[in-house]
Amino acid sequence: MTDCVFCKIIAKGEIPSTEVYEDDAVYAFLDINQSSIGHTLVVPKKHYENLFDIPDADLGILGVRVKKVARAVRDALKADGINISMNNGRAAGQIVFHAHLHIIPRFERDITEQVTHGTHNKERHAYKSGEMAEIASKIRAMFIK
Amino acid sequence: MTDCVFCKIIAKGEIPSTEVYEDDAVYAFLDINQSSIGHTLVVPKKHYENLFDIPDADLGILGVRVKKVARAVRDALKADGINISMNNGRAAGQIVFHAHLHIIPRFERDITEQVTHGTHNKERHAYKSGEMAEIASKIRAMFIK
Repeated sequence: MTDCVFCKIIAKGEIPSTEVYEDDAVYAFLDINQSSIGHTLVVPKKHYENLFDIPDADLGILGVRVKKVARAVRDALKADGINISMNNGRAAGQIVFHAHLHIIPRFERDITEQVTHGTHNKERHAYKSGEMAEIASKIRAMFIK
Repeated sequence: MTDCVFCKIIAKGEIPSTEVYEDDAVYAFLDINQSSIGHTLVVPKKHYENLFDIPDADLGILGVRVKKVARAVRDALKADGINISMNNGRAAGQIVFHAHLHIIPRFERDITEQVTHGTHNKERHAYKSGEMAEIASKIRAMFIK
């Protein structure tokens, strides 16, 4: 879709992103509104608004890719846990209306600030200069092994 | 697994649950620690600890079932949005170590209490007497249409 931020990110050029993974079905990049360092978005390349628009036949591919990227995020960050989440609809916190899944690495050291379905803490999880590129590079390296 | 709460719920008998959906691959029931009225858990019948233990071949089936149950929850509750989430590991808020996905209906009227990845509000989302059975019945009716 011409007005879709994520379609523009996937097309590469108009809107930059910090790439983590790409194949024929999905594009994954670091969320700039991160809930933790390494917070990654996995986006199907085809434009679907939300879960309900994704054909059943594509859900398996998406699930396999999310697991693959989540494992790389976990291993690169040495995370103790991973939240997977998908917000469908404005009332559920969806901001960009191109279906996407969040992969959020979690750490035992942060456990006191967790609630069951995750929480934001902008100051604790801000990237230092250059850190975003470095983290993405570490995650990408996991796919080469 | 003999000591697993969700395996016991799936086996039916020892631990009761408020059933929403069942087929060969998954069992779905209302979460008793709900983030909102209609908060449903979808559990693969096979015991896997988390996302990383689920074979790729099973992820498609799970994805299709989650979409199917989420649509029924949305339609039965007339929800404006749906959060899907999966907590993998204690650091990510996982409490029962049998893989499961949360389906959390969200409403425009509650939007001021939302944060991007959902929040708890026990008092607002408590079930009245009999309401849990009634909500589950409404969701189950969606599969008959």
